[in-house]
Amino acid sequence: MDYISELTEKGKDAKQAARKLATMSTALKNEALLAMATALENKQDVIVAANAQDINRAEANGMPKPLIDRLLLNQTRILAMAEGLRQIAALPDPVGEVLGGWLRPNGLAITKIRVPLGVIGIIYEARPNVTVDAAGLCLKAGNAVILRGGSEAIDSNKAIAEIIAGAAYAVGVPAGAIALVETTDRQVVSAMLKLNQYLDVIIPRGGAGLIKTVVENSTVPVIATGTGVCHTFVDVTADLAMAQEIAFNAKVSRPGVCNAMETLLVHEAVAAQFLPAMLERYHQAGVEIRGCEQTMKYHAAVKPAMAEDWAAEFLDLILAVRVVSSLEAAIEHITAYSTCHSEAIVTSDYEHARRFQQEVDAAAVYVNASTRFTDGFEFGFGAEIGISTQKLHARGPMGLPELTSIKYVINGNGQIRT
Amino acid sequence: MDYISELTEKGKDAKQAARKLATMSTALKNEALLAMATALENKQDVIVAANAQDINRAEANGMPKPLIDRLLLNQTRILAMAEGLRQIAALPDPVGEVLGGWLRPNGLAITKIRVPLGVIGIIYEARPNVTVDAAGLCLKAGNAVILRGGSEAIDSNKAIAEIIAGAAYAVGVPAGAIALVETTDRQVVSAMLKLNQYLDVIIPRGGAGLIKTVVENSTVPVIATGTGVCHTFVDVTADLAMAQEIAFNAKVSRPGVCNAMETLLVHEAVAAQFLPAMLERYHQAGVEIRGCEQTMKYHAAVKPAMAEDWAAEFLDLILAVRVVSSLEAAIEHITAYSTCHSEAIVTSDYEHARRFQQEVDAAAVYVNASTRFTDGFEFGFGAEIGISTQKLHARGPMGLPELTSIKYVINGNGQIRT
Repeated sequence: MDYISELTEKGKDAKQAARKLATMSTALKNEALLAMATALENKQDVIVAANAQDINRAEANGMPKPLIDRLLLNQTRILAMAEGLRQIAALPDPVGEVLGGWLRPNGLAITKIRVPLGVIGIIYEARPNVTVDAAGLCLKAGNAVILRGGSEAIDSNKAIAEIIAGAAYAVGVPAGAIALVETTDRQVVSAMLKLNQYLDVIIPRGGAGLIKTVVENSTVPVIATGTGVCHTFVDVTADLAMAQEIAFNAKVSRPGVCNAMETLLVHEAVAAQFLPAMLERYHQAGVEIRGCEQTMKYHAAVKPAMAEDWAAEFLDLILAVRVVSSLEAAIEHITAYSTCHSEAIVTSDYEHARRFQQEVDAAAVYVNASTRFTDGFEFGFGAEIGISTQKLHARGPMGLPELTSIKYVINGNGQIRT
Repeated sequence: MDYISELTEKGKDAKQAARKLATMSTALKNEALLAMATALENKQDVIVAANAQDINRAEANGMPKPLIDRLLLNQTRILAMAEGLRQIAALPDPVGEVLGGWLRPNGLAITKIRVPLGVIGIIYEARPNVTVDAAGLCLKAGNAVILRGGSEAIDSNKAIAEIIAGAAYAVGVPAGAIALVETTDRQVVSAMLKLNQYLDVIIPRGGAGLIKTVVENSTVPVIATGTGVCHTFVDVTADLAMAQEIAFNAKVSRPGVCNAMETLLVHEAVAAQFLPAMLERYHQAGVEIRGCEQTMKYHAAVKPAMAEDWAAEFLDLILAVRVVSSLEAAIEHITAYSTCHSEAIVTSDYEHARRFQQEVDAAAVYVNASTRFTDGFEFGFGAEIGISTQKLHARGPMGLPELTSIKYVINGNGQIRT
C-alpha cells in the first residue's frame, strides 16, 4: 500500500473511532489500558524478537552504542511500559470535567466541558516505548492516535502496536483508535503534516531537527515540545552551598535531557567565593566548561566561550558559565538566549526571587531548586506526553488535561437573538 | 522602508514592549485604554478625513456598496469604538490569575499562573474598527500586537493606530506595544506568517480565503477563526412553534455572520406539519431555499439542493433544507458537513437532547436556542477577539483569557532531583 492510501485510510478510521471514543466510559477505557498492559507482559517474547530485528539492522548500519541502547527492549523495559499503562489507568479521566458554567440574563445556561481533542498525530524518533506511552495517554483522554515512529524501530513498533491495539479492540475500543504508520518512507511525515482533514493536532517528540521540520511544514496545529536552553543564576545573596548542589544537579544528573541546565550565571560579587570550588567539582565530574573572561580566572580547565555557546543546547556534559553584574543582567542574558523552558535563581533575597519569577518568561521558573524538576511526573501529573515550549494551548509538562479541548453546551427554552 | 525591515523593526520593538507589558499594572493598562478612547473621540475629524481617502479610493475602484459601508467610519462608529475600549477597561484583568497550585512531597510549591501570550499578530480585512478592538483586547491581556489590516482601509488604520498608540504611550505603555504594518504589499502577509522570532501567535480575522492562506502558510502558531456551517435539527418531539422561531432567527436575523444557520434538518415525522409554514415564512423573508427531494414537496419555491450545498457557508439569505429519518441521521449529517462551530437541536426529548450535546462535536451545542448566540458578548465575556473553530488553545468565542498563556512558578529551598 502506498503511504498516501495508508494515511488516508488510517486517518478516516481514526476519525470514526474518535467519535466513539469521545463518549466512551472511563471504566471501559481503563479496562482497555489494563488489557493492553497484560498483553504486553504476555507477549514479551514477540516484542523481544521484533526488537532483535531492529537491533540487528542498527548494528549492521553502524548505529552508535548509545542510540542502540535507546532502541533496545528487554524484560525490564517491557514491564516498565506495562506499568506505565496501569498508572495511566489509575489517573482521573479528564473528559467530561465541567470547567465552569453560568446562567445568562436571557435564561440560557452555558456549561464549559472538557472534551477530547479528537485525532492526535505523534511523530517521534527511536525510542519504542513512546508507542505505548502515547497510545495509552491519548486513549485515556478519549483521543484516537496516529503514531509515526522512527524507521529504526519499525519492527518493534509494529509488534507493540499490534499487541496493544488488539488488546484494546478486544475489550471494545473501536478499531482505528490506535494506528501506527507502517510505511517508513520519510515522505510520509510531510504527508502527515498536511493531513488537516483527519488530524486535530500533531505533537512531535524528538530532537531539535524533527521539531523544526514539523513546526515549519505542518498545516495541522502543532504543539512544539522540547528544546531547553535552561539557566541557573546564582545571586549575590545565594546560600552558596545550596547553589552548588542545585547547579551541579541541574547540569550533571542527566545532561541529555531538555530540563538540564546549559548555562550557569553567577553574580560577580560572589564569583570569587563560589566559582573555584564549583568549577573544580564540574571538572572532576567530566564537565567541559566554556566560560566568559571572568570565569576563566577561576579555573585552569575553563575554555573560552564562543558567542554560539550562549545559545547552545549541549545535551551533554558541557556547560557555559558567565559572570554577570546584577539580577537585571542575568534576566537580560536569559531573555536573550532562553528557549523559555526552565529557568532558576538561587537567592535569599525576597524581592529578587519575586522579580525573577515575574520577569523571566519561561514555562517553569524556579527559586532555590534544580531545573531538572520540569517533568510531568515530578509535577505530580502522573504522566507526560511531552514538555511544551510554546505558549499556545499548553506550556510546560503536558499531562492528560493538555490532551483535551473544550466544548460549550447551551441549554435554552426557545431563546432567539434580537 | 521595505516590508522586511518594517516587520523586523516592529517585531523587535513589540517583543521588547511585551516584556514590560507582562508586568504592567492593571491600573496603568486601564488608564491607557481610557486615554485611547478619549483620543479617538477628540480626533474624530482626523479619522473621518483619513477614512474619506479610503472611501474615495474604494469608489474609484468600483468597490461594491456593502463593502464600502463596512469601510465607512462616521461619528456613531467612532464613538462605538471608543465605547468598546471603555468596556475593555472595565473587564477583569486575566493576567496574574492563579489557576491552581500544589505542594509536592519533596516540598516544592508549584503555582500555575496566567501570563500574557507575548506578541500577537492580527491579520484582518476591511473593517477598520478591528484595529481598535484588537489593540484594546491585546493590551488589556498584557500582549503587544502587530496589526495588519486590509489595504483598502490603510489610511483609516494608520490614523487610528497613530491616535491610539500615541495616547497609550503618553500614559506609560512602552513604545512598540501597538504596531500597525504600513506596507500594503501583499507579500507582507507571507513574511508575517514566518515571523516566529517575534510573534507568539497569529489570529486571522476575515473570510474563508484569508483563514486558509494563514493556516496553510504560517509557521507561527495560529488560532483559526470563523467558518461556520451551522445546523439546526428539528426533532420529532420539537415544540414546532418554538422550532419555527429558532430556525427563522438562526437564518434570517443576520445571515452574513458565522453563527448563522446554513442547513436546516427536519425529522421526517414532523416534516409535513412543520415545513410548509416554515418554508413559506422563509420565502416571504426572501430566503432562497435549496432542499432535498422530500423538502421540495412542501413548497413550490424550493430549488433542488446540489451536493455542494450541504457543505456551503452561504453567509447570505440562502438555506439548505434536508429531511432526515432520525436523530442518528441528523447527527451523521452534521458530522459529515459541520465546521464544528455551532449546532442546535429543538426537541422535547431529554435523551435526544443529552445525546445531541454529547455526540455532536462543535464549539457550541445548543438545545432549544438559536445558534446566533455564539458570540463573546452573548456568552457574557464582555469582549471578543474572534470565534475559534479549532480545538487547540481556544474553542468558541475568545475573550481576554483566551489571549493568555500560563507559567509555572516553583518555590523550593534547595531541592535537587535524585
